[in-house]
Amino acid sequence: MEAVRVGLVGAGFMGKIHSIAYRNAAMLFGHEVPAVDAVVVTDFDPALAERAVRDWGWSRSVGSWQEVTASDEVDVVDICTPNDNHVDIALDAFARGKHVLCEKPLALDADSAYQLCQAAAASGRVAQVGFVYRQWPAVAMARKLIDEGAIGQVRTARSQFLLDYNGNPDIPMSWRFDRVRAGSGALGDVGSHCIDLLQYLVGPIAHVSSRMQTFIHQRKNHDGSLVDVTVDDQTEILADFESGASGTILASWAGTGHKCDLGFELIGSRGSVTFSWEHSNELRFYDSTDAADRQGYRTILVGPAHPGGDGIHTVAAQGLGYTDAFAIAARNTLRNLTAGRVVSGPTFVDGLRVAEVTDAVIAAAASGSRVAVTRRMV
Amino acid sequence: MEAVRVGLVGAGFMGKIHSIAYRNAAMLFGHEVPAVDAVVVTDFDPALAERAVRDWGWSRSVGSWQEVTASDEVDVVDICTPNDNHVDIALDAFARGKHVLCEKPLALDADSAYQLCQAAAASGRVAQVGFVYRQWPAVAMARKLIDEGAIGQVRTARSQFLLDYNGNPDIPMSWRFDRVRAGSGALGDVGSHCIDLLQYLVGPIAHVSSRMQTFIHQRKNHDGSLVDVTVDDQTEILADFESGASGTILASWAGTGHKCDLGFELIGSRGSVTFSWEHSNELRFYDSTDAADRQGYRTILVGPAHPGGDGIHTVAAQGLGYTDAFAIAARNTLRNLTAGRVVSGPTFVDGLRVAEVTDAVIAAAASGSRVAVTRRMV
Amino acid sequence: MEAVRVGLVGAGFMGKIHSIAYRNAAMLFGHEVPAVDAVVVTDFDPALAERAVRDWGWSRSVGSWQEVTASDEVDVVDICTPNDNHVDIALDAFARGKHVLCEKPLALDADSAYQLCQAAAASGRVAQVGFVYRQWPAVAMARKLIDEGAIGQVRTARSQFLLDYNGNPDIPMSWRFDRVRAGSGALGDVGSHCIDLLQYLVGPIAHVSSRMQTFIHQRKNHDGSLVDVTVDDQTEILADFESGASGTILASWAGTGHKCDLGFELIGSRGSVTFSWEHSNELRFYDSTDAADRQGYRTILVGPAHPGGDGIHTVAAQGLGYTDAFAIAARNTLRNLTAGRVVSGPTFVDGLRVAEVTDAVIAAAASGSRVAVTRRMV
Amino acid sequence: MEAVRVGLVGAGFMGKIHSIAYRNAAMLFGHEVPAVDAVVVTDFDPALAERAVRDWGWSRSVGSWQEVTASDEVDVVDICTPNDNHVDIALDAFARGKHVLCEKPLALDADSAYQLCQAAAASGRVAQVGFVYRQWPAVAMARKLIDEGAIGQVRTARSQFLLDYNGNPDIPMSWRFDRVRAGSGALGDVGSHCIDLLQYLVGPIAHVSSRMQTFIHQRKNHDGSLVDVTVDDQTEILADFESGASGTILASWAGTGHKCDLGFELIGSRGSVTFSWEHSNELRFYDSTDAADRQGYRTILVGPAHPGGDGIHTVAAQGLGYTDAFAIAARNTLRNLTAGRVVSGPTFVDGLRVAEVTDAVIAAAASGSRVAVTRRMV
Repeated sequence: MEAVRVGLVGAGFMGKIHSIAYRNAAMLFGHEVPAVDAVVVTDFDPALAERAVRDWGWSRSVGSWQEVTASDEVDVVDICTPNDNHVDIALDAFARGKHVLCEKPLALDADSAYQLCQAAAASGRVAQVGFVYRQWPAVAMARKLIDEGAIGQVRTARSQFLLDYNGNPDIPMSWRFDRVRAGSGALGDVGSHCIDLLQYLVGPIAHVSSRMQTFIHQRKNHDGSLVDVTVDDQTEILADFESGASGTILASWAGTGHKCDLGFELIGSRGSVTFSWEHSNELRFYDSTDAADRQGYRTILVGPAHPGGDGIHTVAAQGLGYTDAFAIAARNTLRNLTAGRVVSGPTFVDGLRVAEVTDAVIAAAASGSRVAVTRRMV
Repeated sequence: MEAVRVGLVGAGFMGKIHSIAYRNAAMLFGHEVPAVDAVVVTDFDPALAERAVRDWGWSRSVGSWQEVTASDEVDVVDICTPNDNHVDIALDAFARGKHVLCEKPLALDADSAYQLCQAAAASGRVAQVGFVYRQWPAVAMARKLIDEGAIGQVRTARSQFLLDYNGNPDIPMSWRFDRVRAGSGALGDVGSHCIDLLQYLVGPIAHVSSRMQTFIHQRKNHDGSLVDVTVDDQTEILADFESGASGTILASWAGTGHKCDLGFELIGSRGSVTFSWEHSNELRFYDSTDAADRQGYRTILVGPAHPGGDGIHTVAAQGLGYTDAFAIAARNTLRNLTAGRVVSGPTFVDGLRVAEVTDAVIAAAASGSRVAVTRRMV
Repeated sequence: MEAVRVGLVGAGFMGKIHSIAYRNAAMLFGHEVPAVDAVVVTDFDPALAERAVRDWGWSRSVGSWQEVTASDEVDVVDICTPNDNHVDIALDAFARGKHVLCEKPLALDADSAYQLCQAAAASGRVAQVGFVYRQWPAVAMARKLIDEGAIGQVRTARSQFLLDYNGNPDIPMSWRFDRVRAGSGALGDVGSHCIDLLQYLVGPIAHVSSRMQTFIHQRKNHDGSLVDVTVDDQTEILADFESGASGTILASWAGTGHKCDLGFELIGSRGSVTFSWEHSNELRFYDSTDAADRQGYRTILVGPAHPGGDGIHTVAAQGLGYTDAFAIAARNTLRNLTAGRVVSGPTFVDGLRVAEVTDAVIAAAASGSRVAVTRRMV
Repeated sequence: MEAVRVGLVGAGFMGKIHSIAYRNAAMLFGHEVPAVDAVVVTDFDPALAERAVRDWGWSRSVGSWQEVTASDEVDVVDICTPNDNHVDIALDAFARGKHVLCEKPLALDADSAYQLCQAAAASGRVAQVGFVYRQWPAVAMARKLIDEGAIGQVRTARSQFLLDYNGNPDIPMSWRFDRVRAGSGALGDVGSHCIDLLQYLVGPIAHVSSRMQTFIHQRKNHDGSLVDVTVDDQTEILADFESGASGTILASWAGTGHKCDLGFELIGSRGSVTFSWEHSNELRFYDSTDAADRQGYRTILVGPAHPGGDGIHTVAAQGLGYTDAFAIAARNTLRNLTAGRVVSGPTFVDGLRVAEVTDAVIAAAASGSRVAVTRRMV
């Protein structure tokens, strides 16, 4: 396999995690994925790009993302910037024949996401979005159980992503609290993962009711002046699925006491599954066909026997972490790049499907009524 | 203290639990509550009333509830019948000057519940409703923490009651599946506990959106014929509280794998609490003012140091069960009867407050819109 | 069935629990067990005996245990006194043709326990010992799984009983801290439950090594003077079973943070089970024959489908507590009294088997060597 | 800082993990640790060494470990071979002035380990042993709590490491089942971690009683012939610490249902801590000085605020895994190499201290008596 040549746009925390993921994917799965050539990196803050060269193995840094998308040495552009830059960079990358891996949320609204999907389709390039959790072994195992009929028809679906890093009013203003730049707050930042997970596992959401709350209405700018927060700190969603299932989503970055509490629960006609990132190496599975006095949720410890968990450790529960999640996703991306098409992992269309729901959630919160999710043909 | 003379209407499972509760309250708390004289019992099924005399210590059985409400030997009428009988029995009891303890839900709708509240007020008698869980030590401790400001302003409130005893389509038709007799299905039967708990802990619910689902649309009558189920198997609620908090409720009796899974979670500006009946002797409490590297949910094991847990066992976690929940509630009721007014435990007005929400939930499910809860002056 | 006439010796906390248990057994299982006639009660403290009459339904109190054992109105003597009185009372009761239910530990050493077993055998009366936990549904279910071969050959067996009520040096001196009256400390008081559970589940213990520790060497007498504590605050045991299994026991009443933490874990060649009183309505069961990607400990929620859990509540996990444990044990005792022989529950011989191990543990702690458990023929 | 030049001996699973760890340490902690130059690798199986060059970034492979220890290009020799090669390789490396990082257990017995410590001391080189778990943030936090007096005097200390990968009799014979090559079985392979953890947290073990069991007495050789297993599948230890604490250790690789269940529990006079690798991002801490009705084990979610957890992720509970454990350990090793002495992490002396206990455990199992641990002056 030829090496894949990557250009990275955005060298903050997420850029670091992606950088590590490429290396670890090569070291863990070297026999099955192409090598990664870390060609070029950029960031709006040149010092971050420099650090990426110095510490993370990128060959050189450049001063603008246009130099990355335009580079002949780059096969795939990896976008780890704030949300409002995704569209411009990705459109340019497709126009120049690059593959694109873009962090979530794909775009600020469904119209923009749709534009990206059309560009991706027109270019024929691989277009992946960074929904890393659906590629996580415990989650992939939940999907496998569903596909095998082990829980029957899903009737009830819940998901939550609670963190509390923005619950402190002293956290200063940033682009994440500005609707113009971020699209939404907790909804897009963390709720998008919930929406993607439930649609991955249960299918398209058809209607939503919702409630969006802002708890901290103003935050301090760098100059000490108070600025209005224009996004949600928390969003709650009541959702109907096309399949007939229904459920709820709770997304918050002010969820006091919850540090990284992503989870879901699916209750089916035959069984149920639950997952929580706080115990991320476990999937709980209930099988109603077990003997009457031996029924109970099984705590499945995830390991080499589970989808995506192969090739890493030797025993279950040895411990996969956040870094591994991205190595597993990178393996999928690298496989797709070799195949020239997406065979595994979420695509821009999945990103669009989330954005369509996000738009409906914002509308439902404003109107107080149940809102149908508008779907686009792709 | 003079003995309290009780007449029991309804001698099924709940009648048994009440019977045990009176005895246990006397034995556990004999020094502080009046003795109970189990005067008379009735049931629509005379065999059940006979059993109550034979096994549960009731002095005699009678053939109709009217003989109970009319009896001069009875101070308090305890109503454990199907939902649609509550109003007639309670109204008659009040009219005859009796105190009333009525199982939940108080009535099939808020108008009926309001009628009961008015009758109770006019009579000046003690009027208690059987919301047993809010009297449970771990729950009372949650309330204590809130009252002490330990979690600050509640921002997010969730509750669920999931069981799966009606998830099997072979469960035959009964009054519980008939809207005319039961008012609603899982909503009234188990969701009413969630509504009561959240209103007890967070205050009145102001608006609701909701989704009601029936999974098993027909069930077999005794003669084998199929009858339409006219109630919900599951109800999901998105609720705003008057305080500004918001939250969700999930009530289901078809929640595969969940056997008696009542719980709630309150996230506040300063701390959080969570409770689950599956680990009913625990309350989890997070205090954001703990030292940065020592923060974490505390698993408080409930015992003599907690409200309502005194006078029972010698150490925490010795194990309180469902039977104890009713003994604790009976202690509260007996204290109230001695005082001649409700000093502890849920009143008919609390039952009305739940019925008002229930009405709004049904309307919201039908309309697809957010519905304001109509409140009545009492 | 004729009513069973009980005489109670000892009206402290354990006497209260037994009193409640007789009532609850009658109310819960009235159709299958005889009624209980609470004939007579005594205590070394007459005020406690008076309370038992006033609050717990005992017909009358007497001034000495001899009046109980001698009473013609008594069929069974229930012994809830401090440990050093068990032998005298039980021997006298058997001599007078009474059945005996005796709290654990049966006697201060194996020789005394053996004497009791011989007296019981000679009398032909029912002789039960209060090992309540082995009768608990989750534990009985563990035994059922073992009997069905579900975990194969047990290889490893652990048990612990940790509480912290005596970890405070301000707890005053009492008979429990005096070797002459109590025999041992945490070992006999709580470790005896561990020994009984493991022998019930895995079979006889053959050899032990052990370590006994006293953390608080002196405690205050009522007059404020300091007295030496002569018993263990904690005992650790390394045990071999006759079956070839091995394991450990940890018993402590100074286990900071552990409120009522009784548990065991059995690891077998085919599966495993674990139990903890802190989650007493659960049994965890691992079945290695489950499909490779679906293996995991099942959390079995205990209810009507499990041995001893029938006839109480309507669904699993509804919540059994400490009071219920004694009602379940009372049901077994009442069944045995009706049958005239022990068909269910632990006998004096089981109490002897524990005492034999206890003796060996004390010897092993003293010698530092592995000690064989001396068994007596009964 | 100058780059550190590493030579790796042993390119199996552990060699892979070390290779990843050097890279990740550089990428995560690049500003604070020297770069790693992966100079040369060898393995008894040349194909594995080739793979290390191809997939893991080693510059070249050589045919013998002597070529690694002798290489002028190597600053530190990293030993990931089977146990019986550790001594020869490390002695030669020290003789040639190299630093040494050696996987655990350091040597087959304490005498050999002592020889290594003497050689290390004579050479003045950094000598680290691969006890990775004591460097894990949750464990380091436990140590911090102890050092701060948060749990008072440790009275009781338990540790276990249970896995079940060798519980299957079909697992073929290998060097791990041969006492001559491995020294011991589960004791050295996994129990050594328990011993190190408890000595790290509680101090030196003074005496041990023990029981060693082999469950599967013969395994198949590559040619299908049955060979005797000469090591333990499980070891149980009853230990006294010099501090006066006592405790137990259970180590097994046939612990049916336990996949990677390393844990410990320390009970102190003021508080307690518990840790389990199955929930490796948590530390549970009980503080008896909390208010009486708010006491309970806190589940501390580990993150940037905890020792060793800094510089990796942005929030607690984001998820550290096994790979991260080695990156954290590599950071410590690289810091030590820069300092020219061990400032952080376990040394060869710690490895010796474990071997001394291991020797005593084997002797105690053979004799059935409590055995004093023989300590050597270093």
